Amino acid sequence: MNPIAAIDTMLYDRTQVSDTFKQIQERICRGLAEVDGAGEFSKDEWQHHEGGGGLSRVITHGAVFEKGGVNFSAVEGKLPAFMNDKIKSGATHFFATGVSLVIHPRNPFVPIVHSNIRYFETNAGDAWFGGGIDLTPIYVNQDQGQQFHRTLKQTCDRFDPNYYQRFKEEADHYFYIPHRQETRGIGGIFFDHLREKPNERSILDFVAGVGDTFLDAYIPIVTTNKNMAYTEEHKAWQLIRRGRYVEFNLVYDRGTRFGLETGGRIESILMSLPEHASWIYNHQPIEQSAEARSSTFFTKGIDWVQS
Amino acid sequence: MNPIAAIDTMLYDRTQVSDTFKQIQERICRGLAEVDGAGEFSKDEWQHHEGGGGLSRVITHGAVFEKGGVNFSAVEGKLPAFMNDKIKSGATHFFATGVSLVIHPRNPFVPIVHSNIRYFETNAGDAWFGGGIDLTPIYVNQDQGQQFHRTLKQTCDRFDPNYYQRFKEEADHYFYIPHRQETRGIGGIFFDHLREKPNERSILDFVAGVGDTFLDAYIPIVTTNKNMAYTEEHKAWQLIRRGRYVEFNLVYDRGTRFGLETGGRIESILMSLPEHASWIYNHQPIEQSAEARSSTFFTKGIDWVQS
Repeated sequence: MNPIAAIDTMLYDRTQVSDTFKQIQERICRGLAEVDGAGEFSKDEWQHHEGGGGLSRVITHGAVFEKGGVNFSAVEGKLPAFMNDKIKSGATHFFATGVSLVIHPRNPFVPIVHSNIRYFETNAGDAWFGGGIDLTPIYVNQDQGQQFHRTLKQTCDRFDPNYYQRFKEEADHYFYIPHRQETRGIGGIFFDHLREKPNERSILDFVAGVGDTFLDAYIPIVTTNKNMAYTEEHKAWQLIRRGRYVEFNLVYDRGTRFGLETGGRIESILMSLPEHASWIYNHQPIEQSAEARSSTFFTKGIDWVQS
Repeated sequence: MNPIAAIDTMLYDRTQVSDTFKQIQERICRGLAEVDGAGEFSKDEWQHHEGGGGLSRVITHGAVFEKGGVNFSAVEGKLPAFMNDKIKSGATHFFATGVSLVIHPRNPFVPIVHSNIRYFETNAGDAWFGGGIDLTPIYVNQDQGQQFHRTLKQTCDRFDPNYYQRFKEEADHYFYIPHRQETRGIGGIFFDHLREKPNERSILDFVAGVGDTFLDAYIPIVTTNKNMAYTEEHKAWQLIRRGRYVEFNLVYDRGTRFGLETGGRIESILMSLPEHASWIYNHQPIEQSAEARSSTFFTKGIDWVQS
């Protein structure tokens, strides 16, 4: 957690943060619908039982995107017990707002993608931001992986020269499936409990910058790959990789866990799950196959910017 | 936990327990392969990194069973931290042996089924048994549900007149998906931390009786339903219900959780997951449909023996 520029102890204006996030949701949905060409994002507004609510936007049966959701929420409630070790003592209630998206494309050559930006505050006067973007290719294209990471680095560098490396390592650490000893995909950036200001800028500026970088990082890959031909074998591997995605989200993902424990809207929390997934007992990719080659990239510590 | 006949503080003979369990595994695999008619159970022996090991038996692409596993294990190791509140203080290591099975049939009219018997002891001199059998029909046939529960009750009654009701309620409680507010299926029996002897009998006798009741409870349903015709719509509902099964197993199931936390053999732990599952955003069965009628049974407190 170093170097720390300046601890930002101020609570942010809830409306300013959530309005900023809502606009990012809208821009992302527009950009994704445009590249899809056929699908539209539905709008489901919902209320949280303790306070606040959200707007879930879901695309299904698009030309490119089989299933995807871009969820905005701004909710308040009692802090769940499992968070007690992470927060200032004395806090009993939280306010949280964020945008969270997961996109499951139809074509196995178009990667699954996830992004999230969030703001959290407690009634003990503590507040922080979190967020990130990470890519889960079914078949890894090294050039595209590099381009993806470079786009993230450029955005981070505008705020702090150390952010990319630090948050890239956090992504490696976070998007990891211990029981498989593999990463979920090729990572990206991830940060949580961010309380220190980047030089001369607000944390909100940085987090909004991450939110808006999503389209720049992802759309070029979609455009290039969306019409690639694929076989039944490619599809089978996609379903297996999606199974791993389900494992990560249900067993480890903090956002999913938080949503399940705080009684969030279940369809919005689990819209991150793919329409179809599969589990094959003892499946091993054939040696030297494209599947085996891709699997060598599902590991921590790869330098995607230099390599 | 009442009435308690006699607390059985004795540790059991590990070899006697694990040999009994292994024989039950063998009988169950024979019975299932026979009703399948085409599939065979593979045999994968494996070692646990801290001590002991197991034998996983898996059927794939059978005529009736798309995927199913019957897993035996007898392992030892360090107690995982999350169990600390459940065990006598001073314990640092465990020995556990058990048989665990999950069967995912191809035909949507043949229910998913799960059964488990297990023995657990710690180096602090504490020991207990656990186990159960529960049924997850995709389409609920009430007569078959009643017959299933009656078979379990008959076995329980041979040991203690209170067991069925008590363990049926525990199954309702355990096989519940809080975030869906529904049970996984139509329940069955479930017990854990069983330390008290049934009248004049050993706990091992009872647990082995439960293990051997599995075929009696399940095979008649398979035989009756395995050749029923089904449509794409039936299959789609099956995949959705399997998705719920995945949610339960990855988010709540103690056995899965314990396996993941103690570094068990991952393919054996997750062989409980179906070959194919799906998640449809905001799916609701059509009113008055067979799917809607079945869903009314996915609730606690149904009296399957009297009704």
